[in-house]
Amino acid sequence: MKPPSQMKKNAVQISERISRASESGTTRLAKIARDFKAGGKDICQLGVGEPDFNTPGFVLEAARDAMARGETRYTDVAGTKQLRLAIAEKLRTENSAEYAPEHVIVGTGAKQLIYNALMATLNRGDEVVISAPYWVSYPEMVKIADATPVIVDCPASEGFKLSGVALEQALTDNTRWLILNSPGNPTGAVYGREDLLELADVLRRHPGVAVMCDDIYEKIVFPGSKFATMAEVAPDLWNRTLTVNGMSKSFAMTGWRVGYAAGPDELIAAMTKLQSQSTTNASSIGQAAALAALAGPNDFLDEWNEEYRRRRDLVFDRLSQIELLGLNLPQGAFYHFVSCDGMIGRRTTKTGLLANDEAVCEYLLKAGVAVVPGSAFGAPGFFRLSFAASSETLDIGCERIREAVDALA
Amino acid sequence: MKPPSQMKKNAVQISERISRASESGTTRLAKIARDFKAGGKDICQLGVGEPDFNTPGFVLEAARDAMARGETRYTDVAGTKQLRLAIAEKLRTENSAEYAPEHVIVGTGAKQLIYNALMATLNRGDEVVISAPYWVSYPEMVKIADATPVIVDCPASEGFKLSGVALEQALTDNTRWLILNSPGNPTGAVYGREDLLELADVLRRHPGVAVMCDDIYEKIVFPGSKFATMAEVAPDLWNRTLTVNGMSKSFAMTGWRVGYAAGPDELIAAMTKLQSQSTTNASSIGQAAALAALAGPNDFLDEWNEEYRRRRDLVFDRLSQIELLGLNLPQGAFYHFVSCDGMIGRRTTKTGLLANDEAVCEYLLKAGVAVVPGSAFGAPGFFRLSFAASSETLDIGCERIREAVDALA
Repeated sequence: MKPPSQMKKNAVQISERISRASESGTTRLAKIARDFKAGGKDICQLGVGEPDFNTPGFVLEAARDAMARGETRYTDVAGTKQLRLAIAEKLRTENSAEYAPEHVIVGTGAKQLIYNALMATLNRGDEVVISAPYWVSYPEMVKIADATPVIVDCPASEGFKLSGVALEQALTDNTRWLILNSPGNPTGAVYGREDLLELADVLRRHPGVAVMCDDIYEKIVFPGSKFATMAEVAPDLWNRTLTVNGMSKSFAMTGWRVGYAAGPDELIAAMTKLQSQSTTNASSIGQAAALAALAGPNDFLDEWNEEYRRRRDLVFDRLSQIELLGLNLPQGAFYHFVSCDGMIGRRTTKTGLLANDEAVCEYLLKAGVAVVPGSAFGAPGFFRLSFAASSETLDIGCERIREAVDALA
Repeated sequence: MKPPSQMKKNAVQISERISRASESGTTRLAKIARDFKAGGKDICQLGVGEPDFNTPGFVLEAARDAMARGETRYTDVAGTKQLRLAIAEKLRTENSAEYAPEHVIVGTGAKQLIYNALMATLNRGDEVVISAPYWVSYPEMVKIADATPVIVDCPASEGFKLSGVALEQALTDNTRWLILNSPGNPTGAVYGREDLLELADVLRRHPGVAVMCDDIYEKIVFPGSKFATMAEVAPDLWNRTLTVNGMSKSFAMTGWRVGYAAGPDELIAAMTKLQSQSTTNASSIGQAAALAALAGPNDFLDEWNEEYRRRRDLVFDRLSQIELLGLNLPQGAFYHFVSCDGMIGRRTTKTGLLANDEAVCEYLLKAGVAVVPGSAFGAPGFFRLSFAASSETLDIGCERIREAVDALA
């Protein structure tokens, strides 16, 4: 046979829905950085949205036990009854939100639940309101589901948060969803109870709009802020609220791929239908691990949060001294969203003109620091720096950034 | 707050794509049977497409080791380089098919790869040729991807296999895919080298049609038959062939959710893009387990196959004595696809007239045996009986079926 490289290309048509979407910018950059590292290059990896902590030992033990018990078979598509009960219980006790196991679905990461919810509800012509800076996948998922993302810019001066007025202006007869993410990736903005009540007031006047709360960073909130979610704050919107959460960020379980969502019956049924035809259940081993994580001792979370806070402050102290950068103090999650407008337009001896935030990130990568350009999050002129890395790595990373900025003409 | 049950229903719109698809008939029935069992009812579970063997010990050990090494983080979306290398090597040595790691993607079960391939390639108006009896999910996935399944009936008299003539008649200018599944679910039909060459000849005259080979039952083939796949038999079709396989059926790893696909660059890239926006990677623990399974000693497969053969023959001997049933001897997989036409139209004292295969299956469930109606597979008048169960269970199940048939008026 001919080697594949000599064969005719593009014999298989690529669908319109996939052609109009982009690959996840963050997973793509994570791969580049992993490849760099595998190639022996010394890179401070501050680009990835992943805790550097290990999955807690008692969670690993639960997974080992499940394997030994032979829990290596199909589960219900929506997840084991035990796990769905534990999730409903978690939502009741921690979030004052009323869900029965039938209102809960477990999937392959919170990402799948968001994707499935959009695929299960959106038709061509529908609109989804997303505040920018946004998590990279929201607009792409909306496009894959044939609908239109409506991006509302939420500047740093407004704490990167969507106001009721801005929401009202963005809504049309075609709006089907508002997506909220708090604590938010990439900005660390936290919507408090009052913020959510303001948005709920607007939603009450628009009964055709559902609200999706991506609560994946729930557990990573810093002193002075308090986590809230729509299902708790506006229970009257229960039948059009989808609460999405998962194990990845809170419990350092990114690789396990276990997330969950809770919402009204017909939505969960439609999401379950799609999952039954696309992936079946999340890993049975992962589900056993998730059950242990939800039930287990949670004192390590306070320690992790205190460590995240120290790292946040370390980076803030170091980078806010650099005149060409602009920083805000994030209230949650583990990212600094740094304005690099001051660097743009300047020249470097190595890479020429820094035309935009992508050029800035390329320049920083060559200087040995991986960060993600803000334009991937719908906010050009910024970069996202993850402080889910050791203090040593952060220290070196900040120093490299300072040197790189100093070297600018 | 009001309890959920008192709230207004259907506040969230369900999309057209999900409304026109059905939930997976087999996963739904599996849930019913699990619920029965949890409720203490004595059911011979012969409805599920799942090995009753345990995941081999050396695979569990590899998963435990991966956890201990901290392999609990994101991997590349398409899977770890190590696993993709092992898959490419497997395809080269076992299937004489040339794939590099860049042509391989690992996903959450073979199901996700099939779903992603269809979503990545189909537009409204496109057609996909599927032979009936078919695996339940193919037509539903095609519908979710806005396209049209074109079902070609392949009767028992033709060994449940698609001929070149029948394929030629089904093709139109809108055909994008032919899906093949060999050994096949639910019939156990195996396409030999000659069968595939006949289909390849037709495909050569239709350059716009790609071919997907779902090889998930590859390792379960009985004496007298030999596995073959299109990538091996017709390498000139390389750039429009997608080879799909996974760990679930061969290695008793259904719960782990690890499958893979290999194909031309642009197709794998499009599938990777969709996966980056929907689930990220398959479980990192599952990937480590899959790597061990592919690399490990495979002598247990021969023992398992011999056991499957004994069970196949046991059921065949028992059920072919029942006049109202019609059996064929499957060449692979672990299902008997049994004609129950003789039962239909008869009366029972308990459930009234047996109007169709679904009524037959309901009747048998009440008699203590779970099997799946043929209409779920596009073949009314049959039921699928899985012999991936112990000889004792099969013995009791066959006896219950005999008694139930004897009780018919």
